Amino acid sequence: MRETFHDELNQLGESLVEMTGLVSVAMQQATSALLDVDLTLAERVISDDEKVDAVRDESERKAFDLLARQQPVARDLRTIVTTLRMVADLERMGDLALHVAKVARMRYPAAAVPAEVQDTIREMGDIAVRIADKTRDVLAGKDAELAEQIETDDDRMDLLHRRLFAILLADDWAQGVEPAIDITLIGRYYERFADHSVSVARQVIYLVTGEMPQPATAGNGRPETALGL
Amino acid sequence: MRETFHDELNQLGESLVEMTGLVSVAMQQATSALLDVDLTLAERVISDDEKVDAVRDESERKAFDLLARQQPVARDLRTIVTTLRMVADLERMGDLALHVAKVARMRYPAAAVPAEVQDTIREMGDIAVRIADKTRDVLAGKDAELAEQIETDDDRMDLLHRRLFAILLADDWAQGVEPAIDITLIGRYYERFADHSVSVARQVIYLVTGEMPQPATAGNGRPETALGL
Repeated sequence: MRETFHDELNQLGESLVEMTGLVSVAMQQATSALLDVDLTLAERVISDDEKVDAVRDESERKAFDLLARQQPVARDLRTIVTTLRMVADLERMGDLALHVAKVARMRYPAAAVPAEVQDTIREMGDIAVRIADKTRDVLAGKDAELAEQIETDDDRMDLLHRRLFAILLADDWAQGVEPAIDITLIGRYYERFADHSVSVARQVIYLVTGEMPQPATAGNGRPETALGL
Repeated sequence: MRETFHDELNQLGESLVEMTGLVSVAMQQATSALLDVDLTLAERVISDDEKVDAVRDESERKAFDLLARQQPVARDLRTIVTTLRMVADLERMGDLALHVAKVARMRYPAAAVPAEVQDTIREMGDIAVRIADKTRDVLAGKDAELAEQIETDDDRMDLLHRRLFAILLADDWAQGVEPAIDITLIGRYYERFADHSVSVARQVIYLVTGEMPQPATAGNGRPETALGL
């Protein structure tokens, strides 16, 4: 019985890993769509958000089902409740990638991002994806110490976010108000995406309470996720 | 046993009602601080956010404790899991009121809101507070049909949000980029505050599955909340 339970908990962990992979790809593609002025790619990110929502629905159903059938207590209960929270963070990350793609689509065939801020936006996109990928690895139980790197990456994101405002407010900003509004919103989308990812990583670390999650293999041949501890 | 459980569930509902009241007051004060250029009020909103976080911590502890001790199933389980989600929405609403107050503080003694957008921001603030207050009433089980009014209020919020951008982008906008950035962010804070409140109201309605929650009085003399059904 307990082994079945932990198998199911592990599957739930895999859904989180999958969802994190999906939102990472979404943000990577949204950034490309934005900077390369690629309408097809923007449309793909927008339509692919359904996939994130489908994994969210499935994860919530599984988590709820586990709570109802298995009546877990203590650590197992905390794991499932925390999973529901992480699912909400990940869904929001998908929405934020979608918002970035929608700005690209709205301004097409013009570029939403003026030359002055392209490098900063590109790096914010890279860091957002890097943070999501490390969060996925933390969820997959690969390396809990990645959490420290994630915090450093997030500090860098905050720095870039401030740099973005400095560029918009500089005397030589010649693009006017509309691009400034777009960039303000886009900057916030990246920053929030990173915040939610950091939140997920922190919750995993909290669950494993400082122990390094083992990259062990479960009896069913699936890799053991951090949640399957 | 079940009566105790429903008493506890009802207390949890009261915590949500309290939290909604706190974030409503926070947003009302943050809007006043912003429009009346009132530093003292802005500081109060910023320091009062602790209270929201304290009720959040207490609610999460109670919900978790109920799950662990009472092992609820079906509807009761769904109620507690949904409560945890609503607590997260409400905490975020508190953060958004805090963000508005921080813009007021950052620009003090200057006004962050130029004359051209004061009326729009004032109405967005009023609607945000109205939506939160109606959500509190829905939570308190007073009137599930308020949910319909909340959707209408939220449509109005979206309209005002679009109007805000129209003002910023009009040819006669003479305030330049910095106020445009502030207003873009402030507008988003109000819109997101309303979104989270609508989300809470919808979750309550979902829980009561179309039935009007009864404004009955529980045996312990506390008013029965919508969650105590």
